[in-house]
Amino acid sequence: MRIVSLAGGIGGARFLRGLRTAAPDSEITVIGNTGDDISLYGLRVCPDLDTVMYTLGGGINEEQGWGRREESHVVKEELAAYGVEPQWFGLGDRDFATHIVRTQMLDAGYPLSAVTEALCARWQPGVRLIPMTDDRAETHVVVSDERGRRAIHFQEWWVRLRASVPAEQIILVGADQAAPAPGVLEAVAAADAVILPPSNPVVSIGTILQIKGIREALESKTVVGVSPIIGGAPVRGMADACLTAIGVETTAQAVLELYGTPLVNGWLVAEEDAGVALDGVEVQARPLIMHDVPAAADIARAALDLAARLAGGAGVPASPDAQREAAGTGTEREAAGTGTEDAR
Amino acid sequence: MRIVSLAGGIGGARFLRGLRTAAPDSEITVIGNTGDDISLYGLRVCPDLDTVMYTLGGGINEEQGWGRREESHVVKEELAAYGVEPQWFGLGDRDFATHIVRTQMLDAGYPLSAVTEALCARWQPGVRLIPMTDDRAETHVVVSDERGRRAIHFQEWWVRLRASVPAEQIILVGADQAAPAPGVLEAVAAADAVILPPSNPVVSIGTILQIKGIREALESKTVVGVSPIIGGAPVRGMADACLTAIGVETTAQAVLELYGTPLVNGWLVAEEDAGVALDGVEVQARPLIMHDVPAAADIARAALDLAARLAGGAGVPASPDAQREAAGTGTEREAAGTGTEDAR
Repeated sequence: MRIVSLAGGIGGARFLRGLRTAAPDSEITVIGNTGDDISLYGLRVCPDLDTVMYTLGGGINEEQGWGRREESHVVKEELAAYGVEPQWFGLGDRDFATHIVRTQMLDAGYPLSAVTEALCARWQPGVRLIPMTDDRAETHVVVSDERGRRAIHFQEWWVRLRASVPAEQIILVGADQAAPAPGVLEAVAAADAVILPPSNPVVSIGTILQIKGIREALESKTVVGVSPIIGGAPVRGMADACLTAIGVETTAQAVLELYGTPLVNGWLVAEEDAGVALDGVEVQARPLIMHDVPAAADIARAALDLAARLAGGAGVPASPDAQREAAGTGTEREAAGTGTEDAR
Repeated sequence: MRIVSLAGGIGGARFLRGLRTAAPDSEITVIGNTGDDISLYGLRVCPDLDTVMYTLGGGINEEQGWGRREESHVVKEELAAYGVEPQWFGLGDRDFATHIVRTQMLDAGYPLSAVTEALCARWQPGVRLIPMTDDRAETHVVVSDERGRRAIHFQEWWVRLRASVPAEQIILVGADQAAPAPGVLEAVAAADAVILPPSNPVVSIGTILQIKGIREALESKTVVGVSPIIGGAPVRGMADACLTAIGVETTAQAVLELYGTPLVNGWLVAEEDAGVALDGVEVQARPLIMHDVPAAADIARAALDLAARLAGGAGVPASPDAQREAAGTGTEREAAGTGTEDAR
């Protein structure tokens, strides 16, 4: 089975780890958000691609959700000692190495997609990770502060200001000129199912959907989304600040309408959001909290099952391995109230 | 008093620390060797400039002589995990920050001399450190190995091969096109004395002398050199391998002849090398081992005294501070057999 998933950072990466567990024999292509990418100290940093790569590759800082585990911060301290700005972006030493390798390859002329593939050769994420585009398309946020009304880089708003200043507008600079990276449209065309993880619907998935050709390609596919909003609040992160900026309520219903039809065919919401509905979309309520990998896998299985049903197929055949893996942590999952409603 | 000194790495830096102690009220300009500079992982590394900067700025790893103290090597480990080459050059995490800042400034269009000044704003080395040139002039070494006769970067020969393969030729690539960095010739013109520390006479001082205009400017000045060779062996490092490559014996006499007249006016040799002589050069024998900063300061004082005498002046007036500083460690110096022969 061929699966395509769009992903932002932490939420997307954790969901993907579940998806990989739920569909171990599938070929999974992940289209990663690069709108958050930023050049710092002359190095190219791709936070979302790295979060996916580290999470699926076993190198993530689990507590933090981003960055490397067993990380140190010597380089950052030294840069601060030189008075180098910005000092509000937290890059660790292990992480620096990734950006050094990436920057060297980009400077040598390799496109970001080739660089990402090279980095993944080390991490073996078990999915094919492709940036949404090899071109520069950067999310900027219009804010008004003591310096007046101005557009700042998404990371400055998100990390430095912690989204505390209202976003008046969110713009993907360069979206008009950006083309999908090689392999993106091909993967979508070949996909049996497309899954939208509970990533930020504005600055992660919404960004990917702005790259020309991607939304159109997805519209002819069976697409199932997992709501990033549970009971009127983001599962994690500050998606509400982003939704507010584009005039959308922070509800599972509003996000579904934001994605809309004909893009989405199936929509998973949390049990407290049962009642969400949209013509042409099959909505299913189930536990959506990703306590751990098995819980994420359960959600992924539900999404894949729904996609298979919508496509008229027979659902995802659970491999014996996947069944054993799931069985091994069954008790925990039940205790956490995330038992799967899957009929398989 | 205005002093100009040419310097390579460890030996030069340690001598300069003594020079600064010996002449605390002087204006010292250091012309640093950049022939060893190398681009690694897309970052510009200037080993000699950094050794001088860290040593005089209190950041040096004393035991090692180069690199930062309290250093870690996480970035290097991670680069190796990505399979990035070369892996034979040891950059520490703190050191990486210096190269990141330097590279970012160079990429922004600043010349190396301006970058060096900016880095020194943090380190406050107490001297003005200027690279010999802002242009690319890179030392390459011709070797014959299993891959045939070829020119390799100096660092590959020095660090990877530890100078174990004979150097057939040592070439400063780009020497013809390289101009002295801004301030170099001006500092020489204004100098009351020029001191050549016991740096490598081929790949450190010899390299600086190849930049057009520098040797000529020095020839009209009072120049006193400190022999890097004691009793037929380099004080430290592998200067013998470099001297052999250019057909020069590893003796204090041969190095003096290599520098020659009219460049050198005074020459300090170790007591075991008494007897070294060259027409037009005043040779003085004295202890030359730099056990510690006071010992280095004693040698520097002897060099300055000799320069003053040759220039017809009255020697360097020792400041009360310098005298107190020297007195505080007098016993140690005497115990180490490095008591100064200065007449002051």
